[in-house]
Amino acid sequence: MISLTPDLDRQSDVPLYQQLFSYLKGQMEAGILKENERLPSIRQLSVYLSVSKNTVETAYQQLLAEGYIQSKLRSGLYIMALEKLELEGSGAKTGTTLGSEKTQQIPKSSLPAINFEYGDVELAHFPVRQWKKCMVEALEECTVEVYGYGDRQGQAGLRTEIARYLYQARGVVCSPDQIFLSAGTQTMISMLCQLLPLPKKIAMEEPGYNGVRTVFRNHGREIIPVPLDSDGLSVELLKQGGANTVYVTPSHQFPVGIIMPVQNRVRLLQWAYEHNGYIIEDDFDSELRYQGQPIPALKAMDTGDKVIYLGTFSKSFLPGVRLSYMVLPELLAKDYRSKLQTYSQSVSPLIQAAMYRFMKEGYFESHIRKMRKLYQARHKTLLRVIQELFGSRVGVIGQKSGMHLLLDVYNRSSDELIEQAYQQGVIVYTPRLNWLNPEECPPSYIMLGFGGLSEEKIRDGIIRLSKAWFSEM
Amino acid sequence: MISLTPDLDRQSDVPLYQQLFSYLKGQMEAGILKENERLPSIRQLSVYLSVSKNTVETAYQQLLAEGYIQSKLRSGLYIMALEKLELEGSGAKTGTTLGSEKTQQIPKSSLPAINFEYGDVELAHFPVRQWKKCMVEALEECTVEVYGYGDRQGQAGLRTEIARYLYQARGVVCSPDQIFLSAGTQTMISMLCQLLPLPKKIAMEEPGYNGVRTVFRNHGREIIPVPLDSDGLSVELLKQGGANTVYVTPSHQFPVGIIMPVQNRVRLLQWAYEHNGYIIEDDFDSELRYQGQPIPALKAMDTGDKVIYLGTFSKSFLPGVRLSYMVLPELLAKDYRSKLQTYSQSVSPLIQAAMYRFMKEGYFESHIRKMRKLYQARHKTLLRVIQELFGSRVGVIGQKSGMHLLLDVYNRSSDELIEQAYQQGVIVYTPRLNWLNPEECPPSYIMLGFGGLSEEKIRDGIIRLSKAWFSEM
Ligand SMILES: Cc1ncc(COP(=O)(O)O)c(C=O)c1O
Ligand SMILES: Cc1ncc(COP(=O)(O)O)c(C=O)c1O
Repeated sequence: MISLTPDLDRQSDVPLYQQLFSYLKGQMEAGILKENERLPSIRQLSVYLSVSKNTVETAYQQLLAEGYIQSKLRSGLYIMALEKLELEGSGAKTGTTLGSEKTQQIPKSSLPAINFEYGDVELAHFPVRQWKKCMVEALEECTVEVYGYGDRQGQAGLRTEIARYLYQARGVVCSPDQIFLSAGTQTMISMLCQLLPLPKKIAMEEPGYNGVRTVFRNHGREIIPVPLDSDGLSVELLKQGGANTVYVTPSHQFPVGIIMPVQNRVRLLQWAYEHNGYIIEDDFDSELRYQGQPIPALKAMDTGDKVIYLGTFSKSFLPGVRLSYMVLPELLAKDYRSKLQTYSQSVSPLIQAAMYRFMKEGYFESHIRKMRKLYQARHKTLLRVIQELFGSRVGVIGQKSGMHLLLDVYNRSSDELIEQAYQQGVIVYTPRLNWLNPEECPPSYIMLGFGGLSEEKIRDGIIRLSKAWFSEM
Repeated sequence: MISLTPDLDRQSDVPLYQQLFSYLKGQMEAGILKENERLPSIRQLSVYLSVSKNTVETAYQQLLAEGYIQSKLRSGLYIMALEKLELEGSGAKTGTTLGSEKTQQIPKSSLPAINFEYGDVELAHFPVRQWKKCMVEALEECTVEVYGYGDRQGQAGLRTEIARYLYQARGVVCSPDQIFLSAGTQTMISMLCQLLPLPKKIAMEEPGYNGVRTVFRNHGREIIPVPLDSDGLSVELLKQGGANTVYVTPSHQFPVGIIMPVQNRVRLLQWAYEHNGYIIEDDFDSELRYQGQPIPALKAMDTGDKVIYLGTFSKSFLPGVRLSYMVLPELLAKDYRSKLQTYSQSVSPLIQAAMYRFMKEGYFESHIRKMRKLYQARHKTLLRVIQELFGSRVGVIGQKSGMHLLLDVYNRSSDELIEQAYQQGVIVYTPRLNWLNPEECPPSYIMLGFGGLSEEKIRDGIIRLSKAWFSEM
């Protein structure tokens, strides 16, 4: 019998037959299960995997229906030849066809492109019903608070909910008065540049989040790159850089994924206190931590009120709400609020009112709990399949949290890797823009976002990548 | 019989009894109808005004119920003493009580504050049902387009609808490719400063919209103030200022309300063509024009593609959607789009998807038509009541369109006027921040926004203002 070692997860929300189906499909697409090989019988496989016959049968039926296998009378199920792939969806420009000549009588599946784009989130499990309820309630309120410009700082009720959440989830103690909303992190950074006396020089992790770096630069700020060591931003090198304001991602360094250990956090805070500097902490995906104890935000340790804390609902909830927030030190909050008097709020008060309800009803916290489990399962699958199929040919960078990781595909170059992946209908990215000088990004780095992909898709995608990158070996 | 001259509008959506009620209430509050005067009988007044007895009776009943008049047995209806006013609502800090001792047995009304805040829009007539339908449909779509970050430039369907609308309503010919969305005009201006090579010097009308001026300044731009003449921005003085980029509001100069005549538009465009300059046209409330023919946008005449056109849904629809847009000249659009690759869109894709539906279904155009009539009626009422009660003691500035106007309360000062108004529960504003140097704003100017006030409230408000400002005369 051919060797089958699916790693079935009996706790998962994904039914076993579906897991088995994806596994088999993946093995075929990766060329591990080869054309014309005979599959074990339903009874054999169910005994072997300790699953019900029903599970195996359903998985086989789906493979049959999708043209991966064919039934030869009285002889069993055989694997079909897979030659071409049909692309569908956003990034795909050219399409080829899945399935060999032989499959033409059988209903064909057209495999959609698999997009490892960072920033996508899971939608299939999104609590549409609750969110819709909250939106409709907000719409029906029909008051100036909801339909007009709204509070410049953000709806007071929502800010109260955020303050409560930050205390419970991140250990951050602040009053709703210190909280300011904006339509995404970039808009927030722009507002900071416009309204605070941020200095000319801003230090940033190198590599660091390009989305924010660009905004700083477009506001005339000079970026002082501070190299990372294994503890994240090097406070030693920060000192040498001569800036007194730094933007950091301590909970999950973007893009390399380091979680800053507490000793380095203490050093960083001390630097701020000694240099009368400010730390802009971007806590963008702290909700998604899969290994070890959750570490509170840097802000939670900030006894000297020198941390400007940034959060967003883009990872923990939905990018589509375009809702992010900031906690300002008390000293700055007053000044900022008075300058804000000539600015209107950028987040739709309709969205704010709905989000307020969503948090107040407890939907947000249960959503986060659910999503953390879901993303954790995806993360686990991704790591496992990478390990299984790529083995020692790649290094995995940043593997404890978040919705992305970096691959170091040894001795290869991202241009070629991206193109090869594309030929297999898989879209992957280079993280190079996150280096101040993109040339300095190791060419073998590939960035994989997995937030928007089911475990099945992840498996599929890695299988295809294995074929794309390593099939000649 | 006491003299009653209500100007009843038989075309209005507001029922006649309601108009009569407001008129009488207003006359009492303004002290024109005095305490203990006897009202005409129902029959008398109905004959005198050519309205049904029912109309008069209903109006009287409402006045009775609210404690404005009292019924003396067999003798008729008499006006009660009104001494104090109860404040309610946002701006109000201190409250006093409406009604004299005598009214205490009769149910008292607490008069809410009347806020002439610019920026408020009518909500009572807002098509909640249709908008809700569009939002719910958008929510139910549950796709990455709607729940994810969305297109950086803005949803393509919505941009197509905007392009169509701009052509039909404003004569602007552009492709959806040239349209960019953002979360309000200020965010748009900020994006322009960040992504276009806008020069250091920006010319602006003086006075001009402070909301935009502040953003330019906070992006390090130097404002070159260009005085207005009766045709709006003086192109002669613009030339002398030496800037090659100018921000203007030709359809309805903010704040003084001049509609730039076509000759001056031609001069302005010629200036741009000769100096290779750019004109940023803010067409913020062009939908609301009440006298004369609508003039197409400046952009509609721009054969040399030198006008950057800005529009917003804040006046024509709702501030609460936080949705504005820009049409870039083709030359700039390409460059801008490529720089936009590192920016995410600031408008919630949920809102965009709903707005797309709202426009596509034709709801938007019929809403505008309805609102134009409604605001026109308010505008007319405001002008008429001002004329009636203030007469030659004030000058009215900017009276053909929009949702605000300026009052010149001759020989008075805004600080005092605002305070006196406040004592009567009316909140009015100074437009001074719209002068580059606020000291140069004539102190006698008061700004009245009327978008969010019913005709009744407007009448009430002006009556109270008359009492506040001129009662000693
Ligand atoms: C470091 C970092 N900060 C913030 C964000 C989120 O930005 P926003 O709030 O605009 O969605 C991201 C997402 O890409 C990120 O990687
Ligand atoms: C001149 C001018 N432009 C634009 C706006 C609208 O700005 P937004 O799109 O941010 O609501 C206003 C409203 O106050 C305005 O007066």
